[in-house]
Amino acid sequence: MKNLHNFGYSGGIYLANPSYDEVQGVKVYPSIKDIPESIDLVIIITPARTVLSIVKDCVKKGVKCVIIGADGFAERDEEGKKLQNEITEIARHTRIRIIGPNTVGTVNTATGLVTAIYLIGYDKIKKGGIAFVAQTGIIGPQAMPYDDWGYGISKICDLGNKCDVDESDLLEYLADDSETKVIAMHLECITSGHRFLDVAKRVAQKKPILILKPGRTKESAKALMSHTGSLAGDQKIYESAFKQVGVIQVNSFKELLEIPTAFLCQPLPRGNRLSIITFTGGAGIMAMDIAAESGLTLAKLSTETNEKLFNIHPTLVGNPSDLGPLYAMNGESPYGAVIEAMLNDENVDCIFCVIVGGLLSADFYIQTLNEIKKPKDRPMTFWVYGPSSESNDQVCLELRNNGYPVYLDIETAVKALGAMYRYKTIKNWRRTI
Amino acid sequence: MKNLHNFGYSGGIYLANPSYDEVQGVKVYPSIKDIPESIDLVIIITPARTVLSIVKDCVKKGVKCVIIGADGFAERDEEGKKLQNEITEIARHTRIRIIGPNTVGTVNTATGLVTAIYLIGYDKIKKGGIAFVAQTGIIGPQAMPYDDWGYGISKICDLGNKCDVDESDLLEYLADDSETKVIAMHLECITSGHRFLDVAKRVAQKKPILILKPGRTKESAKALMSHTGSLAGDQKIYESAFKQVGVIQVNSFKELLEIPTAFLCQPLPRGNRLSIITFTGGAGIMAMDIAAESGLTLAKLSTETNEKLFNIHPTLVGNPSDLGPLYAMNGESPYGAVIEAMLNDENVDCIFCVIVGGLLSADFYIQTLNEIKKPKDRPMTFWVYGPSSESNDQVCLELRNNGYPVYLDIETAVKALGAMYRYKTIKNWRRTI
Repeated sequence: MKNLHNFGYSGGIYLANPSYDEVQGVKVYPSIKDIPESIDLVIIITPARTVLSIVKDCVKKGVKCVIIGADGFAERDEEGKKLQNEITEIARHTRIRIIGPNTVGTVNTATGLVTAIYLIGYDKIKKGGIAFVAQTGIIGPQAMPYDDWGYGISKICDLGNKCDVDESDLLEYLADDSETKVIAMHLECITSGHRFLDVAKRVAQKKPILILKPGRTKESAKALMSHTGSLAGDQKIYESAFKQVGVIQVNSFKELLEIPTAFLCQPLPRGNRLSIITFTGGAGIMAMDIAAESGLTLAKLSTETNEKLFNIHPTLVGNPSDLGPLYAMNGESPYGAVIEAMLNDENVDCIFCVIVGGLLSADFYIQTLNEIKKPKDRPMTFWVYGPSSESNDQVCLELRNNGYPVYLDIETAVKALGAMYRYKTIKNWRRTI
Repeated sequence: MKNLHNFGYSGGIYLANPSYDEVQGVKVYPSIKDIPESIDLVIIITPARTVLSIVKDCVKKGVKCVIIGADGFAERDEEGKKLQNEITEIARHTRIRIIGPNTVGTVNTATGLVTAIYLIGYDKIKKGGIAFVAQTGIIGPQAMPYDDWGYGISKICDLGNKCDVDESDLLEYLADDSETKVIAMHLECITSGHRFLDVAKRVAQKKPILILKPGRTKESAKALMSHTGSLAGDQKIYESAFKQVGVIQVNSFKELLEIPTAFLCQPLPRGNRLSIITFTGGAGIMAMDIAAESGLTLAKLSTETNEKLFNIHPTLVGNPSDLGPLYAMNGESPYGAVIEAMLNDENVDCIFCVIVGGLLSADFYIQTLNEIKKPKDRPMTFWVYGPSSESNDQVCLELRNNGYPVYLDIETAVKALGAMYRYKTIKNWRRTI
């Protein structure tokens, strides 16, 4: 209830519990049936054994949606599984839609409708274009410091045991949600493979879908069965199916969390030709490795661009262009001129840029980047390193808040561009079909 | 010079430059030859064209070692390459040893001998057991916030262009260096493959060697040639050779930086049977995937251990053991009892534990972990997540400072255990031969 108030949720809120008359000055009804008004959504956070009868009450009351936070269902034991199946049957034979059980809830930053059972973290979540969907509560702001990372969130949904609403329903919903620009999903299992692939194929043409699919090994797939009470399926089949329908599969939880922010604030590249601007030769080489493994190739700069770079300083010619030697010589770091020259080269599709925390301020980078003439189809990502974690974190956050996706590790920064190029090729399918 | 003073270097320091008489109250000699005392080490940070004659002066003076910070040699152009070759010839035909050119220098935290040309970052480096060796200055504390990460450093060496001293020399030196417990190397190219593999095979039996080998693709290998003026070689040959001699190859710069700290403060495991203690089912499954991909397998807990877990609370039985449901029920999080039960199970070789920042304090975790009865051959690593970056960072740093390797991402935490198991099998070679 506090979450709903904090978020500025303006709809009516009713409480039901047979043991109380009043909570925080709000009247408590003995049961759902006793509430005089019509109800859109019921959040059930009572013990598992009480849930079935409450759901039945909801149906009688004409409730549209139910979120079951309680655990102790298919993920616990046979009895719980039976109970969950009975709830599923109700959803199948009525018009009621049910999220959960075993979910920490949902977040909708547009309406302030926060149904999560946790308070911490929810007070500082920021509106934005990323939707996180998961089969674990760990995706919620009680576990992930989205605001500290500079992330803007549209929706969060922990699907829980998926007794009714599943990932396909969520995808369809998010496809039409005007707040959501990029969809990141953690999917331990898929309820209906055929339907999901069908939906994903359509949605992927509208919005990028990033998926982390745990349960890649025999042991973890077996553990998944007990965790969510459902089969994990064969990893290779998933991989090839995801590829076919245009879903971008990521390889780590870190990538699932961090890559969406680049989609949010940068345009898609036209192609896969990468320019690297570095402050040290070593980072340039490492970036090239990651780029090649992410489907990118090194751009061949035009003669004109190399001339521009030469005129700034002869040591800057080439791709990667290394600002380090010039800085060592005379303390100059002409980021603006170098990035602008690269960005406006017709042979360049995207840019990875190494910046140094502490050496130059976040304000310097933001002002420099804002002043550059930027074509609309050349994304940039950044890696910040430097001798102080505090400075690096600050540069990272402030630049992100200004629309420049900065990362604290070189791998994710380059992989984000690879994912954006991959999505561009997916968008191109429609044109070529 | 300021670095040397800050670090408490107690040896004599002499300056040589034809243009000055005195710097910061210290007499400046016109050249090396004019210094009245005998000299052990000369650091040359003059322009490239002046270096050859200074090196010749060093030979005449009987100097043992030279570090050439200047760039503009083989990495720049043909002329620079010629110059570098002449310096190499001098090293070959005399007893002088030369590091560089094109190096930011070296750090020795034991003697305070810091030869780096940067000041920033060097003021707060902490003594410890990790040696970083690289063909890039980016490994230095002017670029990486080791202290903020809670890392203890023994030696840092930027090998630069390796005109004389190379990675094999460094390995031999570090093998006998009592301060160094684990060796992390970033190697763009290897001067003499046969010698390196021979040395690495011997050293790997004494100390773990982690290597990141950039230049994995055609493009980056080509770029390497210009960056360090040397050939990168075929990646697959490296991979198989590293494996044969017992070098642990890591896949990212992040892993090279972060995995050594686990080796430093935790024992090696006897085998690869992993126990997972989690706070959320989803993290347990993700950990199992990473574990399997890192050569670990899920431990089958003994009946006794499962009984112990059952007696703490029935929801804790199993591997992964999930503390989340119990905490949700009544706010209890019996980390100590669960970890102790797992650690003392004969079927368990290592433990990965998920902890939550903000929810419980760093002090709670440290006290809990300190009080546990710990067998000497069961390493633990930790992943901290939570709603506040500040809390997570604090838990991470404070636990690291107390000998518990905590990571901010689940992947590296589990991979570190995989690397330790891999090293254990390498150590076992000697016994089985």
